[in-house]
Amino acid sequence: MKRACITGGAGFIGSNLADRLIDGGVEVVIVDNFSTGRREFLAGVASTAGVRIVDGDTRDTATVENAVDGCDWVFHLQANADLRRGLEHPRRDLEQNTIATSNVLEAMRARGVKQIVFASTGSVYGEPAVFPTPEDAPFPIQTSLYAASKLACETLIEAYAAGFGFTGVICRFVSVLGERYTHGHVFDFYRALKRDPTHLRVLGDGRQEKSYLHVQDCISAILLAARHHENSASAHVYNLGTDETLVVDRSVELIAEHLSLTPEVEHTGGRRGWIGDSPLIRLDTSRIRALGWRPQLTIEQALLRTLEWFDANEYAWRDEAMESALS
Amino acid sequence: MKRACITGGAGFIGSNLADRLIDGGVEVVIVDNFSTGRREFLAGVASTAGVRIVDGDTRDTATVENAVDGCDWVFHLQANADLRRGLEHPRRDLEQNTIATSNVLEAMRARGVKQIVFASTGSVYGEPAVFPTPEDAPFPIQTSLYAASKLACETLIEAYAAGFGFTGVICRFVSVLGERYTHGHVFDFYRALKRDPTHLRVLGDGRQEKSYLHVQDCISAILLAARHHENSASAHVYNLGTDETLVVDRSVELIAEHLSLTPEVEHTGGRRGWIGDSPLIRLDTSRIRALGWRPQLTIEQALLRTLEWFDANEYAWRDEAMESALS
Repeated sequence: MKRACITGGAGFIGSNLADRLIDGGVEVVIVDNFSTGRREFLAGVASTAGVRIVDGDTRDTATVENAVDGCDWVFHLQANADLRRGLEHPRRDLEQNTIATSNVLEAMRARGVKQIVFASTGSVYGEPAVFPTPEDAPFPIQTSLYAASKLACETLIEAYAAGFGFTGVICRFVSVLGERYTHGHVFDFYRALKRDPTHLRVLGDGRQEKSYLHVQDCISAILLAARHHENSASAHVYNLGTDETLVVDRSVELIAEHLSLTPEVEHTGGRRGWIGDSPLIRLDTSRIRALGWRPQLTIEQALLRTLEWFDANEYAWRDEAMESALS
Repeated sequence: MKRACITGGAGFIGSNLADRLIDGGVEVVIVDNFSTGRREFLAGVASTAGVRIVDGDTRDTATVENAVDGCDWVFHLQANADLRRGLEHPRRDLEQNTIATSNVLEAMRARGVKQIVFASTGSVYGEPAVFPTPEDAPFPIQTSLYAASKLACETLIEAYAAGFGFTGVICRFVSVLGERYTHGHVFDFYRALKRDPTHLRVLGDGRQEKSYLHVQDCISAILLAARHHENSASAHVYNLGTDETLVVDRSVELIAEHLSLTPEVEHTGGRRGWIGDSPLIRLDTSRIRALGWRPQLTIEQALLRTLEWFDANEYAWRDEAMESALS
């Protein structure tokens, strides 16, 4: 891999991936519209030779064509990641995920770039009948607009592989934790406890089981799969996760302990935190393990690293609304 | 069912469905952009009381909102059905299928209409490992942009069911034959033999096995499933097909016999007629059969009815290009 483009390269996973690739001597083009991506995450690489940062949106074709030009891989991570609010803005997932992915694929085709890694999600399994859930689980019924749009992206990539000889590596992630993690319930709980150390409101019954993966383990898996399938001109799907799960209430406990707090925990009730929330996500990762990958960190280690990073980087979670609440 | 909207209602399946609903006393709003739909197919119902014909496109939100208003069901059949040319226009399936379906769903939501039947395709199974292929077959890899977009539509409908309480009936069709059939290889073969009775070029090796269903059997299944799930506020997937298959070469034989011709048949070779073509489609239809449905016609009967309809309706296959070839 000589040159790679990362869409969403100023985001949580994207900026960590950029660091890893740059350390490995890869030239990197970072595309980000900085809606959730942060310039602080790129501070360490912004002036590195061979790094180009494009302030742009994947919905703009010219921007993407320009960014992917001369790359041998595109890591397409930019997406609307606001799972829970899909129902308030039903077009957002379609536009920012499905249509944007079509744009990226068309830009790649226009410039003769044919290898793409796509960040998908374990949510595409909906409410699976099989646990741990393998990649070839029974054809699922979608339960959220977010997952529906991610699956639509997967199918586009597969069709480009079949029709245009693209190499597609589709990674279905569990929740990812670690340095620069900036959304999801661990983030929400940490901030909420900073705002009100005495009381925490938890969506659902707190017994939802979630699986998590540390961002560096996630990136190791992505790069392994990409290198394994280089120039294969076909599409490959991988579940990425640990074999453990953590109940939501246990993450609350760990966060409270870490902050030396004993908040009163209120559950809103119901098996699901929100419509489309999966009460249990546990993926069968034997396919990526068969390539030799193993996660280096347990879920609790990944969670603690995340909390330590929050402690050291207030800017990442302390926004203006919080300033006034805390002042 | 008191009032229904049919998108693509001037097309092959849509216009037959309109006839059936109108015969059953249902008020029908037909939306069609007449790109492949034909006014001739609506001649019998255009002046019927309770029938409204809207010359418009599902990509236009105002048109769709207006059309679905007051309906208790929407039969969303309008689509880009040009499977084979997906690779020449990679955005077409996205725009005419995925985005158009999002528009229809948003229009329905805006007007409080919550029940939709969607015409999907057995091609969403890609190249399945299991035959006959059930609805919960292993999570497939897509092989065409057409099927990818149809699956994207399915996932949107499922997410609207989960998120907004929509009732969705998703029907995965095999190829449909019968009166007003106007595209697909039976149509192509018939026309080609009318143009040149001595010679026929067949894509692939001619041994591709396809399953077919007569349009009236298809409509009976659609209506049965819709009525069965009325007000269920959830999504339901059905395979629709016969349990038989017909090899492409056998359909060529039947068409030639019907026309009393003995053409020289040339095969272009390869297992697939085109990239994304399925060499074998056979769907497990036990789910729809469990509701009491049975096809009334065999594949050969359906094919013969189609050919007889061609004989009696030259306008449907004899276009200007053919006029000059035949004159």
